[in-house]
Amino acid sequence: MPHNEYSFDSAFGDELDSRDDLSAYRDAFAVDDPDLIYADGNSLGRLSLKSVARMQAVIEDEWGRDLIRGWNAGWYDAPSRVGDKIGRLIGAGPGQVIVSDSTSVNLFKLTMAALNRQPGRAKIISDTLNFPSDLYVLQGCMNVLGGRHRLQVVPSSDGITVDMQAVFDAIDDNTALVSLSHVTFKSSFLYDAEAITRRAHEAGALVLWDLSHSVGAVPAELDEWQVDFAVGCTYKYLNGGPGAPAFLYLRRKLQEGTLSPIWGWFGQKSPFAFDLEYTPAIGIKRFLVGSPPILSLSAMEAAVDLVLEAGIDRIRRKSVDLTSYLIYLFDTFLAPLGFTLGSPRQADRRGSHISIRHPEGYRINRALIEEMNVLPDFREPDNIRLGLAPLYTSFADVWELVDRIRRVMEEKRHLKYPQERLPVT
Amino acid sequence: MPHNEYSFDSAFGDELDSRDDLSAYRDAFAVDDPDLIYADGNSLGRLSLKSVARMQAVIEDEWGRDLIRGWNAGWYDAPSRVGDKIGRLIGAGPGQVIVSDSTSVNLFKLTMAALNRQPGRAKIISDTLNFPSDLYVLQGCMNVLGGRHRLQVVPSSDGITVDMQAVFDAIDDNTALVSLSHVTFKSSFLYDAEAITRRAHEAGALVLWDLSHSVGAVPAELDEWQVDFAVGCTYKYLNGGPGAPAFLYLRRKLQEGTLSPIWGWFGQKSPFAFDLEYTPAIGIKRFLVGSPPILSLSAMEAAVDLVLEAGIDRIRRKSVDLTSYLIYLFDTFLAPLGFTLGSPRQADRRGSHISIRHPEGYRINRALIEEMNVLPDFREPDNIRLGLAPLYTSFADVWELVDRIRRVMEEKRHLKYPQERLPVT
Repeated sequence: MPHNEYSFDSAFGDELDSRDDLSAYRDAFAVDDPDLIYADGNSLGRLSLKSVARMQAVIEDEWGRDLIRGWNAGWYDAPSRVGDKIGRLIGAGPGQVIVSDSTSVNLFKLTMAALNRQPGRAKIISDTLNFPSDLYVLQGCMNVLGGRHRLQVVPSSDGITVDMQAVFDAIDDNTALVSLSHVTFKSSFLYDAEAITRRAHEAGALVLWDLSHSVGAVPAELDEWQVDFAVGCTYKYLNGGPGAPAFLYLRRKLQEGTLSPIWGWFGQKSPFAFDLEYTPAIGIKRFLVGSPPILSLSAMEAAVDLVLEAGIDRIRRKSVDLTSYLIYLFDTFLAPLGFTLGSPRQADRRGSHISIRHPEGYRINRALIEEMNVLPDFREPDNIRLGLAPLYTSFADVWELVDRIRRVMEEKRHLKYPQERLPVT
Repeated sequence: MPHNEYSFDSAFGDELDSRDDLSAYRDAFAVDDPDLIYADGNSLGRLSLKSVARMQAVIEDEWGRDLIRGWNAGWYDAPSRVGDKIGRLIGAGPGQVIVSDSTSVNLFKLTMAALNRQPGRAKIISDTLNFPSDLYVLQGCMNVLGGRHRLQVVPSSDGITVDMQAVFDAIDDNTALVSLSHVTFKSSFLYDAEAITRRAHEAGALVLWDLSHSVGAVPAELDEWQVDFAVGCTYKYLNGGPGAPAFLYLRRKLQEGTLSPIWGWFGQKSPFAFDLEYTPAIGIKRFLVGSPPILSLSAMEAAVDLVLEAGIDRIRRKSVDLTSYLIYLFDTFLAPLGFTLGSPRQADRRGSHISIRHPEGYRINRALIEEMNVLPDFREPDNIRLGLAPLYTSFADVWELVDRIRRVMEEKRHLKYPQERLPVT
């Protein structure tokens, strides 16, 4: 629906909810406090009832009763099984995605593998909007490899988007790897991953996409785009639970010639033969390392099932509607109060969270949390991130969210908080 | 109690139980089937009721209700907090142990760090009894570092023990690192870690101990022994749950000059400042990488609390009594049936599991599982591993375990199973 058909009346949010074919999914989540506006699903997704039920089964029936037999009754296959499920959300055919470790460890494994495949190339490309841990991992890999690589971090001119042409210009025949986030963590900028991947391949470079901020909210077509490597976390829009294990994608065509730097027994061809020499497993499993955290993985699998059931295309459609509605209300109520938009206005260039910026953003964020029963999050220097999770965020929530921000400002509630940052842990 | 005061009557097991000051701890575990003889606590420890309660709280109260606030209310500190708790079981003062990743990933991080500290030395020493994944990780590190290291794997002459002198002889002034398991996974051989560490240090080598098969059953004194590096898993005698996250120890003295190869945001000095350049955290935290799997970690923390409450010295005392009693019954009932002992007879040289060997071990193990309600595990070529977990294995269990093995043999139940191995996953 175009903006000119929107209304700033709160009843309009209810009207949008009445037309929402995903509205019933809110009941699939444990919502303890209906008044809470949870705007941080882009950081930690809500607890689904499917995860609750699955956790009871894995704890009491499997660990408690089946004991060691649990490994043969589903745990051992879980990294591949759940990997394939996540694959369906990101356009990856079976056998190319596994659940393993954390996002950063997966980034390390794939970056090392990628650089190893590109012995004659010294340049790695990323951007200043990438999640810092992604840059740290690249810096760490460069350190391990003795300093023969150079990291070119393409700057963002506005702190919101990255000029695609600037990335294209950076890619040359000395480029080993382009490593970017599909959706950037702060501004929610959504890359045209297909175009970047094509341009990189034309120059002989490999491409790694971090899908942490897109998976479960924005579709990807990794196979179709011929992406080489991807990673992602599962605790945001997949609602996998705090610190739920991450995933990695390795394009089938590259699997045979690509080795993980970390040779663990779960990545060995026959882990239970207990050979003393490592032989990599066939296919993607060679990127597994040690025993996966089954409890965390099980909660996550159930949550992924829910996303699959709802359907990623429906989710994306609602996500665009939610963020569009938020931007409409932002323009109406918040821009006049000194806020600026920290995310792209163009719907096909943004993910499912919206950053709003204000010089007093830190104090406003505190007032929202401490007085208004809103949970957004704050990112330096002035971003309040508002995550809209299509499975449980309603249009009425969006209206209420904007209204509570407006009330903080009009009642000057933020002024009672100090500018000094609390120790963030 | 010396063996000559033992009796092979089943009532003697009950008598030992009546004198066991840890017997009440069995009730701290979820025991679904009292007839089951669970002899695989060395592989996956039982579910404790503390873990059940903790999981309910972390799922429903923390993830479900506190949502993102959970990170500041205990999750973010968990790797250090639980690391310090594990430290109390292995003689490590605070600030030297963290919970992180899997054992194999931790081995990778510490091995890379160790080799980096020893630029002029090319030799790594391990043994043929080490857990294969430990050897794989070493081989992977050598591959990453371009093949300038050599791995010397000290052989075991009997498949049960390693001659300490052979290890001493292998250590020379070209040795960068000695990497061994404190208790070996198959035979349960317990190294004199202090003596090996001392000898390695005399030669300028660093030492890494894998405590996976000792922690929670056999004490260690890492600080006192001046151990450099250690790792361990938490799902065996710590009862942390399937694939529960692992830990690593880095001696305080080495922390400042030692870098992890994997630079992730949880190991960054100020992760929430989101700087684009990595600066390692002060101390052990620099070896953290990404978000830890909080659900798995929480179940594990509760289980570690139980071990701390019972006390590692009492646990070790009972473990020695259990394994001694098992060996006595083995000599009485099983040696005459063609079994040989696959573990050290000397109590201070073994951990808390006992391997018994038989040419028909594979089929005997299957019969135990499928017909006798016993859960041991089998390790090629002929080892049946019997894990005795002091917190929930009773002396009556040990008697019953040996009796069921005896009955399999006398009733020739194993003969109905094929020699061919089932596909082990």
